[in-house]
Amino acid sequence: MFVNRMPRYEILDPDAIATLERGWKRILTDVGVSFDHPEAVALLRNAGQRIDGDVVFLDPEFVLEQVALAPAAFDLQARNPEHSLRIGGDTMVFASVYGCPFVREGEVRREATMDDFERLVKLSHAFPQIDSPGGVICEPGDRPLDSRHLDMTYALQTLSDKPYFGSVTSAENARDSIRMTEIVHGRGREHIEAVPALLAIVNVNSPLHYDERMLAALIEYARAGQAPIITPFLLMGAMAPVSIPAAIAQQTAEAFAGIALAQLVRPGCPVVLGSFLSNTDMQSGSPGFGGPESATSLLCTGQLARHYGLPWRAGGGGLTSSQTVDAQAAYDALNTMLPAFLAGANLVMHSAGWLESGLVSCFEKFIVDIELLRVLREEFTPLRVDEESLAFDAHVEVGQGGHFLGCAHTLERFRTCFYRPLLSSTENFERWKREGGRDAAARAGEVVQKTLAEYEEPPLDDAVRAELADYVARRRTELGD
Amino acid sequence: MFVNRMPRYEILDPDAIATLERGWKRILTDVGVSFDHPEAVALLRNAGQRIDGDVVFLDPEFVLEQVALAPAAFDLQARNPEHSLRIGGDTMVFASVYGCPFVREGEVRREATMDDFERLVKLSHAFPQIDSPGGVICEPGDRPLDSRHLDMTYALQTLSDKPYFGSVTSAENARDSIRMTEIVHGRGREHIEAVPALLAIVNVNSPLHYDERMLAALIEYARAGQAPIITPFLLMGAMAPVSIPAAIAQQTAEAFAGIALAQLVRPGCPVVLGSFLSNTDMQSGSPGFGGPESATSLLCTGQLARHYGLPWRAGGGGLTSSQTVDAQAAYDALNTMLPAFLAGANLVMHSAGWLESGLVSCFEKFIVDIELLRVLREEFTPLRVDEESLAFDAHVEVGQGGHFLGCAHTLERFRTCFYRPLLSSTENFERWKREGGRDAAARAGEVVQKTLAEYEEPPLDDAVRAELADYVARRRTELGD
Repeated sequence: MFVNRMPRYEILDPDAIATLERGWKRILTDVGVSFDHPEAVALLRNAGQRIDGDVVFLDPEFVLEQVALAPAAFDLQARNPEHSLRIGGDTMVFASVYGCPFVREGEVRREATMDDFERLVKLSHAFPQIDSPGGVICEPGDRPLDSRHLDMTYALQTLSDKPYFGSVTSAENARDSIRMTEIVHGRGREHIEAVPALLAIVNVNSPLHYDERMLAALIEYARAGQAPIITPFLLMGAMAPVSIPAAIAQQTAEAFAGIALAQLVRPGCPVVLGSFLSNTDMQSGSPGFGGPESATSLLCTGQLARHYGLPWRAGGGGLTSSQTVDAQAAYDALNTMLPAFLAGANLVMHSAGWLESGLVSCFEKFIVDIELLRVLREEFTPLRVDEESLAFDAHVEVGQGGHFLGCAHTLERFRTCFYRPLLSSTENFERWKREGGRDAAARAGEVVQKTLAEYEEPPLDDAVRAELADYVARRRTELGD
Repeated sequence: MFVNRMPRYEILDPDAIATLERGWKRILTDVGVSFDHPEAVALLRNAGQRIDGDVVFLDPEFVLEQVALAPAAFDLQARNPEHSLRIGGDTMVFASVYGCPFVREGEVRREATMDDFERLVKLSHAFPQIDSPGGVICEPGDRPLDSRHLDMTYALQTLSDKPYFGSVTSAENARDSIRMTEIVHGRGREHIEAVPALLAIVNVNSPLHYDERMLAALIEYARAGQAPIITPFLLMGAMAPVSIPAAIAQQTAEAFAGIALAQLVRPGCPVVLGSFLSNTDMQSGSPGFGGPESATSLLCTGQLARHYGLPWRAGGGGLTSSQTVDAQAAYDALNTMLPAFLAGANLVMHSAGWLESGLVSCFEKFIVDIELLRVLREEFTPLRVDEESLAFDAHVEVGQGGHFLGCAHTLERFRTCFYRPLLSSTENFERWKREGGRDAAARAGEVVQKTLAEYEEPPLDDAVRAELADYVARRRTELGD
């Protein structure tokens, strides 16, 4: 977990914020949001909201009251307390890539498997820059659809002791995630209701629609006091207008509608204001990531989240449309990750491993992204400027035209004075060539292998492990797999 | 020329600025700067500065008075007025890579030639994101050392009509640059003295030493009213202590000493506060670029330049230690270019083509960097947030669960609503694979070829061209080449 004590980069003036507020309020009152779930509609009706079929026209003042019930920051407990997290305020939490059906490793792109899933969780556990492996770090296509959420949860719980995300594929699967989390924490439901232990991605089916599956998961997690990340998934030109302010207004309207619902289910329930906002490439018709629009959107979202006192999620972290681990993959990724730091995102998803517009979890890209996180954590650490840091003695010692390599000030500090890369090379050309002339992607592949070879599974009580395994076995049978 | 109307990202509080000021003042008064040039020493002695051999102990108050004589912003004229520039204030000017003995093109790395020089100038002319090809865009190793400055200047003047940099290899060569600039502007020395037409890189031989060659060039350009970019070249651990504040204090002391001298040569002379500050990789012993230290240094330098009312140069723009056009090259480059935008650099050198710690001018990297500049120019354009941008009609038209691709608001704007990449690909994997599966570096090579094929030489009066050619021929003979 990183504490970002640097200034926020803010680009909206009070007029702009007022305009955006007018925008999201009008969407809620005049266009409305449809909720494909009777309980959700009933809750909103009982709260006095105007309903037409499954479209709910929300009163903005009611919405703001509900939003105010959500905590501005909350703790998220891990089974290893050292890995517990704070979501909100100045903290930034980084989770790995999520939801990819394919993996890429070296030159091979193929359907993801459970073995890939496990190796990616191990990488997430190994690197301290990653606070959570997330949830569906890839889709293990070799496991049955009905029960793979059990396999994934078991892997997340046993191969790492960092917090993880719950399944959102149905209310029943959400209940499995919650029950297995009770087991792994070993102190019953009350214990995880007191301090949440699960995050769960609830995507809006944008524009302005919550589908049955997502609402079922939202209600299940909110009821258990676990933290839904309520995320409008917006590609401008497809699910939102081709205008950043319009998309931000829509994002706020959609997320606030979901947050209002979560607060009706359980007042005070921790939630995260989600954002995942980029654009359609109007030439290829494909999603575009890493461009100026998503960077600008991150800055806007951060500022609004602070305005309304909510912890917020940056879409990513590490996004790119590139098909391979090339220059584009790197500049796209940094152009979403650096703005996430500037904007002070509290939760950054897809922080490591994302490739090919999110279709691919890539092992080498995982390492590139870890390097970016390492660089940015250093870059966003406030500079200490004081008498000692002026190192005047070094100037006196070296004088004119000399060299600082051997001076006392340097000798005392040379091991820790600068950022030390994991992946980047500064070798001169001849040595680099002699050592194989490997580019960053090739070197990243070696870091993957080395990290997995050195991976150590975190300790877990045998009885707890057995109870988890029993639960998975029983539920798998019930689900017919 | 880009006008950066976004907020500056400032990380130094008034205490930190005061501490840094104490630091640079103490270096000047207590350690001093050596000037290996009798005229420079004489000028400083006559101005009342304390001298010991060639070491000058400068009075900070005198230095600040001299610095205050330099304009906070100035115009730089091009022979094509459309390409004239403003250096200072909110403007950002981008110049290509400078000083590389090698080139890289595809998989080939070799000594640079005059043909490479010309092709790189043509690329610089072709892309509107580049305001100046700079000067030594690569070292044409196939031309005689004594006269190659003539060949380079002639190429800069004829293949582009953007402003360029003067030679700094000797006083005589500086005079050649100035004389040739008089010729190409066609209106005598007075005309270019009234509004400067040349920038010239004056590197400090850090720490705290100005060598004879650089001082000769500085004096020559200042005398002609052309703008020296007075640049401490600092790799912490080698030419500066292993501490950013110490290096910033040193950078300020060194640059201010040179600026004070320039103002003695010609009061009011335009100057640029230069910075080129990165660190030694203490593991490889090689220079490191693109890391957190250089990004932080850019932010500090920008803030100090504004504090003292000087236009300033960012080291780069596009820096990397990578040996090839890979992920590292891209993330290093963006991690110097994006901070240069955040810091509001007035002149960004090495904005396109830099590779391998500045040893290599790379054609494909040139295009990667152009893409970064295109993205960042868009990203640093203020977002318009108003009623129209809320696109409320689009929301009314599309409603819940629909699609914005065909709505009126999108159809009216789809051509221009988003950033359009030059290099980045959003193609789906199958199409990308079918089209050759080329990575960003391979595609960049194609952009190079296409751009050069479509290059058009800017018009130049035949008589002027002949006069330039005559000058070059005559001087070449005088120089014995």
